[in-house]
Amino acid sequence: MSKQRIAFQGEIGAYSEQAADAFFGTTASELIPCPTFRDAFGKVVHGEAEAAVIPIENSLAGSVHENYDNLLEFETPIIGEVYLRISHHLMVLPGVAKNSIRRIISHPQALGQCRKYLDGWSHCEIITAYDTAGSAKMIREQHLTDTAAIASKQAASDYQLEIIASEIETNPHNYTRFLIIGKEAAKAQGAMKTSLVLSTRDIPGALFKTLAVFYLRDINLLKIESRPLHGKPFDYLFYLDIEGAAQDEPISHALHHLQEITTFLQVLGSYPRHDHTLY
Amino acid sequence: MSKQRIAFQGEIGAYSEQAADAFFGTTASELIPCPTFRDAFGKVVHGEAEAAVIPIENSLAGSVHENYDNLLEFETPIIGEVYLRISHHLMVLPGVAKNSIRRIISHPQALGQCRKYLDGWSHCEIITAYDTAGSAKMIREQHLTDTAAIASKQAASDYQLEIIASEIETNPHNYTRFLIIGKEAAKAQGAMKTSLVLSTRDIPGALFKTLAVFYLRDINLLKIESRPLHGKPFDYLFYLDIEGAAQDEPISHALHHLQEITTFLQVLGSYPRHDHTLY
Repeated sequence: MSKQRIAFQGEIGAYSEQAADAFFGTTASELIPCPTFRDAFGKVVHGEAEAAVIPIENSLAGSVHENYDNLLEFETPIIGEVYLRISHHLMVLPGVAKNSIRRIISHPQALGQCRKYLDGWSHCEIITAYDTAGSAKMIREQHLTDTAAIASKQAASDYQLEIIASEIETNPHNYTRFLIIGKEAAKAQGAMKTSLVLSTRDIPGALFKTLAVFYLRDINLLKIESRPLHGKPFDYLFYLDIEGAAQDEPISHALHHLQEITTFLQVLGSYPRHDHTLY
Repeated sequence: MSKQRIAFQGEIGAYSEQAADAFFGTTASELIPCPTFRDAFGKVVHGEAEAAVIPIENSLAGSVHENYDNLLEFETPIIGEVYLRISHHLMVLPGVAKNSIRRIISHPQALGQCRKYLDGWSHCEIITAYDTAGSAKMIREQHLTDTAAIASKQAASDYQLEIIASEIETNPHNYTRFLIIGKEAAKAQGAMKTSLVLSTRDIPGALFKTLAVFYLRDINLLKIESRPLHGKPFDYLFYLDIEGAAQDEPISHALHHLQEITTFLQVLGSYPRHDHTLY
């Protein structure tokens, strides 16, 4: 059986790669790093990858609107989701002693999330890099024996670095939800979730009626988020996640009903739900 | 009259400073740069600043959950809001010619947002810095004649740099909403907005009933966003913005009604609404 090609944004060792491994397993897939999210979507559209893994929301930083835009534009269905705990680690070339570290490098967001831990390293220079995995890569490629990187476990393994301090992030409630996008819709199996984007013109009446569509059919709502549209102060997009698959009887009726009261409606996909209490 | 002290996160020249100027005016305030958002909140709580300016949502990157957490924890009321168009500019020391530029430095997010423009600078090294204003500062302090920074107009003015290319961002629909927080609630004047955080246990029934509270009183909803609580898969926080002030009659009744059906309810503040169609 040939390996599945999975596109993701970032360098080998990025958190998206870890999400891809969690979803597809490490042996069944070939990972394709892409410079941008759009490139990752493009790989799927042009048949150069079977799927892509993209971050959609983070528990500290919020929803990635840019990727909702990409989902709408590329029309690639969501076929799965993965919640990943984001955990940062300090890593060095094997054998490098703690007291020979003079510089710590990472992405500014990761450095910020480890600020408390870094207080104990005030004798070191703290240097920013384009991404977490890239800083691990730099240590390996330039054989830096006085430098540590903050990155994922995956990056340590990919660039054969040794982790000398684990889970050094200040706030442990840091997790990212990744979506898996593919060319064909996912088959229904187990507990399913459906993601929708819709637009209504007349707030609040229309939104209330939108929720009534689900409430009247006992359909559980898992996410709702409004997003104002730039330059159109009374127009909103709504992101909704509901329990169940689009082809289920109550949901297919609900989607029909929604056509009556929305000005825009797009189903982004139905896919097996990931129970993130595991994390 | 003594100047108001306004705290913000970042270096002088940061976009938050621009938001502070837009709200308070440049002459009436003394700006206090802080390393973190928490430090900016702390300045207000400890009376070291009259107000702070903090980003709460961006049109591409989403809501800043971290600052919702800070609003709940510090209990400093929201007293205003400002929508700021985020526009990036390329800047150099005065007199430096375009063809002598060898390096371009900025925050990774700003570099990413100017990716298309940077395609025309492929002969230059692109270097990441901790923040946009910091890269402008570095050019001035180290007198770098072969380097350009990508930062705000404000940073160009603060560090006396010359803008050689304006509005170089790929997507012009890039704006950030900033909140102004203070010690005392704002006085009602003009069109007001009220921000709430609430929690319900029983989705979707309770959310539907929550929206009914507003719908039945003709109260306009301006924002709704659900945020799952980590480790509690059936517990959600909801962020709501509604039209009007908490002391207005229909809204005070609505808040009373909400007590019946929510497990948690906190009013973050009522404040004059900023009409962002101006931007």
